[in-house]
Amino acid sequence: MKLTSIELIKLLENKVQRYVEGFDTNLHPYDIAELLVELRNYDEKVYLQELAKFPEELKAAVLIELPKQCHEEFVEHFTTNELAEITNTLDTDDAAELIRNIEEIDEDIAEEVLQHLPQEDRENLEDLIAFGDYQAGSYMQTELFSAFIDEQVGESIRRLKRLKAAKELDSVYQVYVISRKNKFLGSIPLEDLILQGPNVHYKELVKEGVNSVAVNAIDDIHDVVEIASNYDMGVIPVVDSKGKLLGRITSDDIYDIIEERATGQLYNLAGVNDEAEQEESLFHIGKHRAFWLGINLFTAIVASVVIGLFDTTLQSFVALAVLMPIVASMGGNAGTQTLTVTVRQMALGDISDDDAKKTIKKEVYLALMNGSIFAVTIGLIAWAWFSIPLLGVVIAASMVINLITAGFFGALIPLILKKVDIDPAVGSSVLLTTVTDIVGFFSFLGLATLILL
Amino acid sequence: MKLTSIELIKLLENKVQRYVEGFDTNLHPYDIAELLVELRNYDEKVYLQELAKFPEELKAAVLIELPKQCHEEFVEHFTTNELAEITNTLDTDDAAELIRNIEEIDEDIAEEVLQHLPQEDRENLEDLIAFGDYQAGSYMQTELFSAFIDEQVGESIRRLKRLKAAKELDSVYQVYVISRKNKFLGSIPLEDLILQGPNVHYKELVKEGVNSVAVNAIDDIHDVVEIASNYDMGVIPVVDSKGKLLGRITSDDIYDIIEERATGQLYNLAGVNDEAEQEESLFHIGKHRAFWLGINLFTAIVASVVIGLFDTTLQSFVALAVLMPIVASMGGNAGTQTLTVTVRQMALGDISDDDAKKTIKKEVYLALMNGSIFAVTIGLIAWAWFSIPLLGVVIAASMVINLITAGFFGALIPLILKKVDIDPAVGSSVLLTTVTDIVGFFSFLGLATLILL
Repeated sequence: MKLTSIELIKLLENKVQRYVEGFDTNLHPYDIAELLVELRNYDEKVYLQELAKFPEELKAAVLIELPKQCHEEFVEHFTTNELAEITNTLDTDDAAELIRNIEEIDEDIAEEVLQHLPQEDRENLEDLIAFGDYQAGSYMQTELFSAFIDEQVGESIRRLKRLKAAKELDSVYQVYVISRKNKFLGSIPLEDLILQGPNVHYKELVKEGVNSVAVNAIDDIHDVVEIASNYDMGVIPVVDSKGKLLGRITSDDIYDIIEERATGQLYNLAGVNDEAEQEESLFHIGKHRAFWLGINLFTAIVASVVIGLFDTTLQSFVALAVLMPIVASMGGNAGTQTLTVTVRQMALGDISDDDAKKTIKKEVYLALMNGSIFAVTIGLIAWAWFSIPLLGVVIAASMVINLITAGFFGALIPLILKKVDIDPAVGSSVLLTTVTDIVGFFSFLGLATLILL
Repeated sequence: MKLTSIELIKLLENKVQRYVEGFDTNLHPYDIAELLVELRNYDEKVYLQELAKFPEELKAAVLIELPKQCHEEFVEHFTTNELAEITNTLDTDDAAELIRNIEEIDEDIAEEVLQHLPQEDRENLEDLIAFGDYQAGSYMQTELFSAFIDEQVGESIRRLKRLKAAKELDSVYQVYVISRKNKFLGSIPLEDLILQGPNVHYKELVKEGVNSVAVNAIDDIHDVVEIASNYDMGVIPVVDSKGKLLGRITSDDIYDIIEERATGQLYNLAGVNDEAEQEESLFHIGKHRAFWLGINLFTAIVASVVIGLFDTTLQSFVALAVLMPIVASMGGNAGTQTLTVTVRQMALGDISDDDAKKTIKKEVYLALMNGSIFAVTIGLIAWAWFSIPLLGVVIAASMVINLITAGFFGALIPLILKKVDIDPAVGSSVLLTTVTDIVGFFSFLGLATLILL
């Protein structure tokens, strides 16, 4: 069922009213953002006008749920003052993301927005923005519930009450115990706190043993994912290199990071740039896709040069031209199977550096197994098709050679790329098919020249 | 640094001791499982002997962290009684997973283990196991903290104390308010509970508005991921179709589901079966890979038949055989770019059914843009290489035709597969390359026959 833009606006305004008046406690800003995106498909202006009408807090909450492409539009549509107000209502991690997106569109506006913020908030945000995309710090929020080691539980809970009343804190699952110098000592789940009387000292709780797993703000964000999923943690505290508590990363960010990493791998293996695909401009997307297509054109021409070496053979046996793509195609497919499994298992930590030999051995063995089966099959088919028994032998032999090559290089290429610190998903497909194309054509036409001529 | 098996055992036993005695509160069963897996690489027997020595509770906790391949080994190594004891110490979701894994190995043993459990636990587990792999119910745990609507906060907290003391409950982030008939009414974060006095009635809290977002146990597990990530939920309550509270799904399961979905997509696009790749047996893995390779062999032969239609043309112009793979290769690559982006964006919910036309239009436009660039490039190269201007025209024209085909079908195939309820990642690559190979060879050789002969 597709709504008209007028129906959409009605529905939207109704939802906003219900949200603001608290009639529907299940309504999430995401639901409102979803409607806005649909409205945007009809009319870019109207969706911005509707968004502008929202109360400040909802505006901020919805804005952060909108896809990145919308950010450019509201940066143009809203004043610096409004943007600063929106930034101020957001949690620090969301605020930092917004400023980072604005920076990408226009650095001056981002700077102006920052200047409009209270000094403390500005400095806080500037610290967060300074972290790289791939660093844990850029995903953390600084809002959290901490308690000093020399405090009583009751004291800290009174502080929590004040923070909650001021709406400065949300989704508190743990209390982070710190020293007076802000050194992180451990986290205590709220459930344990409930079971303690208000007069218990944190010192005693910490003495009984607390979990102090934390990540460093400059750690790779993928290490954070490893820790979260291996240790079953919903929230992870973040510290600096001196062990001072800086913030925390919550499960919703971890969901996003896992999805993004997977998308990156999928796209890179297919010769697509994941960042570029998020852009609105087709020209921009096309440019990035053209890069890998260009490299593929180059390697395809190299493969053609290899074919060209055997032009006299081809002229004598046109059957070779007919069958030639089969060997290359099977090599490319088998190699892609190996490559994909290796890249993914490396990313998930299922293949460590010590396993390199084992991985290659496994893949070559698989290649030998499937290679033999398909060699016999295609050998018989080629013989039957062109009534030249030796042609069957040639294609069967080159099939085995090319599938073993595919298995070997399909495993080796990502392992080597990782060794030299290149993302094994990027470019490995093109490298691999270059190898399987060249080996496929060379072995088939070469053997044909030797055996048939 | 690679440890010897004796060093590994020493390290392992040391860690186990520290874990059991509570010296190291940051130690997680995962760390111990990791060492066991390393030890297993040396010696299958020794790792099982070490595991058998662990105290019951740790044994269970470590076992569930071990990769699936190990399950077969300990099912053989442990008695039914021991397996039942291990099952009993696990959280219900982990216990159900264990029983499901045992079932895959030997249904009789699984049944025996279930018979060794107390009746209530057995029935509970049987309910969980009955859910399909893809259903929310199969990921939920039934351990949770609930309170009746007519209770006071203090009463429920006393119950929580008892549950915690009996170690029956962990990671409590919310209290789920239910009616006396177990109907789910809403969830209240623990933090809000802390701020209420013990004399407050849940009735009053619910009246003020609570969040009652929940999933149905028979919902698709991917809908659960959508809700968790769109609504930023760390834990999701699960109800039956009458709204009765059954359990909850925690963030660590959601991490796993997101990773598994991504792995499935990556593997399926590469013609690899994600379930089969987890098996230990190379024969089993190879068999599943051979399936898609076999289909690829068939389609490659069809493409060869298309080439065979033009054997007289090929005989007159050997240059055609040399250049022919370039057009097919570029089509395959461009199509894979489109296919991957479409499949992934569909999975992430970025492309809805209404967007089909928009998606196809975008991809055809991109294909036209890049097609023109590469057509001119390869046209000039072919002309220069073989000094036949018309050959350049032929390859340029077929390049444009094939890249537009690639863009069109790369978007259309997954959209259609989804429409008829087939996972768009499965088989779409083979379908696509069949199209790009056939169109590539046919357009190139067909145009050559028309123009050059």
